Amino acid sequence: MDIEELGEFGLIEQIKESFKCRDHLLAIGIGDDTAALNVPGDKATLITTDLLLEGVHFDLELNSAYYLGKKSLSVNLSDIAAMGGTPRYFLLSLGIPRRYPVESLREFFRGLKELSLNYRVKLIGGDTSASTGKLMISVTVLGEAPRGQVVRRTGAEVGDQIFVTGTLGDSLLGLYILRNGINPTRSLRKLPRVVRKHLDPQPRIKEGKLIAGKGLATAMIDLSDGLLADLGHLTRDVGLGAKLWREKLPLSNYYRRNILSFEQDKWKLALTGGEDYELLFTVSRAKVKQLRHLSSRFDCRLTRIGEVVEGSEDITVVDKNDKPCKINYLTGYDHFRARFAS
Amino acid sequence: MDIEELGEFGLIEQIKESFKCRDHLLAIGIGDDTAALNVPGDKATLITTDLLLEGVHFDLELNSAYYLGKKSLSVNLSDIAAMGGTPRYFLLSLGIPRRYPVESLREFFRGLKELSLNYRVKLIGGDTSASTGKLMISVTVLGEAPRGQVVRRTGAEVGDQIFVTGTLGDSLLGLYILRNGINPTRSLRKLPRVVRKHLDPQPRIKEGKLIAGKGLATAMIDLSDGLLADLGHLTRDVGLGAKLWREKLPLSNYYRRNILSFEQDKWKLALTGGEDYELLFTVSRAKVKQLRHLSSRFDCRLTRIGEVVEGSEDITVVDKNDKPCKINYLTGYDHFRARFAS
Repeated sequence: MDIEELGEFGLIEQIKESFKCRDHLLAIGIGDDTAALNVPGDKATLITTDLLLEGVHFDLELNSAYYLGKKSLSVNLSDIAAMGGTPRYFLLSLGIPRRYPVESLREFFRGLKELSLNYRVKLIGGDTSASTGKLMISVTVLGEAPRGQVVRRTGAEVGDQIFVTGTLGDSLLGLYILRNGINPTRSLRKLPRVVRKHLDPQPRIKEGKLIAGKGLATAMIDLSDGLLADLGHLTRDVGLGAKLWREKLPLSNYYRRNILSFEQDKWKLALTGGEDYELLFTVSRAKVKQLRHLSSRFDCRLTRIGEVVEGSEDITVVDKNDKPCKINYLTGYDHFRARFAS
Repeated sequence: MDIEELGEFGLIEQIKESFKCRDHLLAIGIGDDTAALNVPGDKATLITTDLLLEGVHFDLELNSAYYLGKKSLSVNLSDIAAMGGTPRYFLLSLGIPRRYPVESLREFFRGLKELSLNYRVKLIGGDTSASTGKLMISVTVLGEAPRGQVVRRTGAEVGDQIFVTGTLGDSLLGLYILRNGINPTRSLRKLPRVVRKHLDPQPRIKEGKLIAGKGLATAMIDLSDGLLADLGHLTRDVGLGAKLWREKLPLSNYYRRNILSFEQDKWKLALTGGEDYELLFTVSRAKVKQLRHLSSRFDCRLTRIGEVVEGSEDITVVDKNDKPCKINYLTGYDHFRARFAS
């Protein structure tokens, strides 16, 4: 048997099982957006890591080194956001093909630095190596949060309302457009908004902190693998079901205008497209009003898209007449890939 | 210009310069064996990361998956040892070729788990991905040390005596022997000791903690790139020189008996062979006696091999008549590789 047959989730489950441990300082181990360690005082240290591989997670033809530098860090910051935390430090490891142009490397670091300054995250270490193959990037981020405010994936309850920040499906639509031949080195301002969203996602640090700070979310995750796949972690993984109101899914104007040139099913990318890096979270009915009020301070829109239901472990997408829609496509990335704690 | 021309140290220097930062909690940033963060209370958190790439750092033909699992973690523990710290947690990221056998992956995790139990280090997260190319492994370790005991690379002074644990050059000699056709899946006990040293290095956690706990070292590093290269970080990097007494270099019996079958110069591998993962450190003359006493508790031998001298920034190797020896080989790994904080 090779790894493709075992599959990613088989592997992750085996690792989780084999490395189960008890530790009085370890508040959250394998299986959430980040790990969390209790440190003296009232804070928790959050830790997350992401691997980005050329040919799997990015394509040098479709991505400028500048945006790649930014995105290597921002996808990790998004995991910190999903815990309600503040990112503080990061480590970077690079495997660099011997013939990789120094100019590209400079651009990579220019983007990385820009993002790190925007979010006040500091580079404190790493490792570099020649690679005999392709470019590979590994980033580890350390953050912190008040101990009582860390939001896990596992707290949703029946009746909780499901919310999402921003709009859905834009990132994958942006990738489709890039594949159609838009030059990613063009000035960012001239790129369609969905392409920008793909190249330069904005981690929702501010929104995550606001939500966590007020104790409004019962569970939270960032959207990296697509709405249906990631919602499954908040509901199916804890034995619950979910109902999604299809007509409520937030779509950008660009998405509405252009999606049918790429997909017959207008909703497909909103439901399954990965890498939106928005926050998906559940809120008890009693706190919805408070959340609405708080959201005036968000930099993005906030949309109620469904609710948590009794334990069928299914996610049902319903139309405006509350009729279940047929979903006949895969619910997440179809390449072998999984995170086991980030 | 491509990255091979710029070279590793050019790159690292540019990164260090570009990402220089001030932070009241950051005790040690880029450029030591680990980074160190002050946490509330009297401890420091140590963080280090290492990238291991197939075809650069290991060869699947010469390494069994079991030893590879162990070594992925032990090389990082060695960095924690060099700060005098205790390793606590680790994250693992794997890029796995689609056709990599599940059996090998199980062996990898068996080795990893065994080592993690031996040193009581807990897996708290990571990331897995398919790789379109070769196997790649990224490990990040978090450790801790009493804040006042962390040993840096930068404290050596003129007159300090240079010590090393264990023996030198065995790991590279072991690799030579593997390349000559010894099967690494043979039972470990039947492998020559130098091969074991290459496949399964023992991080000197215990010794590092003892040395740091008594405040005996003015500077310390672990031997990953070879004695001359790593000693340069303790002396040349702070504007000092060093004198090494060649006849004092600790060689294993196996090394003495076999080295001349591989190298004309008996001392070459002891001076330049990488991956010994021994501790190299400097001690003021006044504390040598105390160190000798302490070393009765070490699991390995301890050898005084030289001293720190005035600022020529050179390392001189002298023979038993105190005459300088001619060293006409490169002083470290010759492939593009550098760490910038691990």
